[in-house]
Amino acid sequence: MASGDPLAELVAALQRLPGIGARSAQRLAFHILKTPREEIDGLAAAMLSVKDKVTYCSICSHITEIDPCAYCTSSERDSRVICVVEQPENVAAIEKTHGFRGRYHVLMGAIAPLQGIGPDDLKIKGLLARVGQGLPDQVQEIIVATNPTVEGEATALYLARLLKPLGVRVTRIAMGVPVGGDLDYTDAFTMAKAIEGRREM
Amino acid sequence: MASGDPLAELVAALQRLPGIGARSAQRLAFHILKTPREEIDGLAAAMLSVKDKVTYCSICSHITEIDPCAYCTSSERDSRVICVVEQPENVAAIEKTHGFRGRYHVLMGAIAPLQGIGPDDLKIKGLLARVGQGLPDQVQEIIVATNPTVEGEATALYLARLLKPLGVRVTRIAMGVPVGGDLDYTDAFTMAKAIEGRREM
Repeated sequence: MASGDPLAELVAALQRLPGIGARSAQRLAFHILKTPREEIDGLAAAMLSVKDKVTYCSICSHITEIDPCAYCTSSERDSRVICVVEQPENVAAIEKTHGFRGRYHVLMGAIAPLQGIGPDDLKIKGLLARVGQGLPDQVQEIIVATNPTVEGEATALYLARLLKPLGVRVTRIAMGVPVGGDLDYTDAFTMAKAIEGRREM
Repeated sequence: MASGDPLAELVAALQRLPGIGARSAQRLAFHILKTPREEIDGLAAAMLSVKDKVTYCSICSHITEIDPCAYCTSSERDSRVICVVEQPENVAAIEKTHGFRGRYHVLMGAIAPLQGIGPDDLKIKGLLARVGQGLPDQVQEIIVATNPTVEGEATALYLARLLKPLGVRVTRIAMGVPVGGDLDYTDAFTMAKAIEGRREM
């Protein structure tokens, strides 16, 4: 970052971010150029602060500033139920429902053979250790909330096969038509899952 | 930026950028979290470098590291033709055509009464000074390349009225159907402009 055109370098750096194409990167760069210095200082500081302060929980692998994280140490959460997700951001999506009061486990990915990601690349060992602890508040249910994708499904199946023999209940989140959605705009796979997963009224 | 949740602060800071909604901001924040520290250092440095090094040309108001800018000082460019644009990023769009070898003038906006932007808020005085210089390479043509919007059109008309009495030719870039476009997807205003601006074959 020593020589060259600062604006071109910024555009190049921004383009490396996910979902930012050449056009967006240019628009952002020009916006940064026009924005007061203090605001850009703040943004840069916020980026570096995240890198400095945020780490991963040694129990559940969720992001946290204090290890272990608040979800793992909270006395108000039920240790007998663990919700397994792929990424830290998925925890926020589940917390938004205000309906789950168990603990979490973040796999940090999903099994994806084509991308060379196998079970050993995920935080599965830690999950097994949590299940097999034999404490009074022994884990009774693992809710597998990996994504409804090929990788997420493969990971869910793998976990079920691994965990069921340990005497723990393994459940999978329901797949179906999204609330407020329109059946006309629902793809065939989702529709099939919705019919397959139908419930008595 | 002292206390609080660093991740939430980063999401808030990112959301202030144009075209970045709540979702994108969260995705970007998590990406920054996962990206190696050196790369984020580079991005932060690039952002601040742009603020530090890039200024505006005192002649044409285009962005530059050295004042006056390369477009204004180049001996290979025709000083008799000035292309007027709204924003610095528009210069890049015109340069991409490799067809224009004149000089530029950046207005830093367009006349937009509803947003309280009048002629005095634009770099119009500087443009008048350039036209009236009376040098051997006197300006002969002003190409108004403001956006094909209500504001851009209003600005173009204002400039034409101001500049024509000075004996300079004022032209406006053509509006019409974009190359490679489909007439079926062309809106009525564009189509009307395309017909209005038709040329003999």
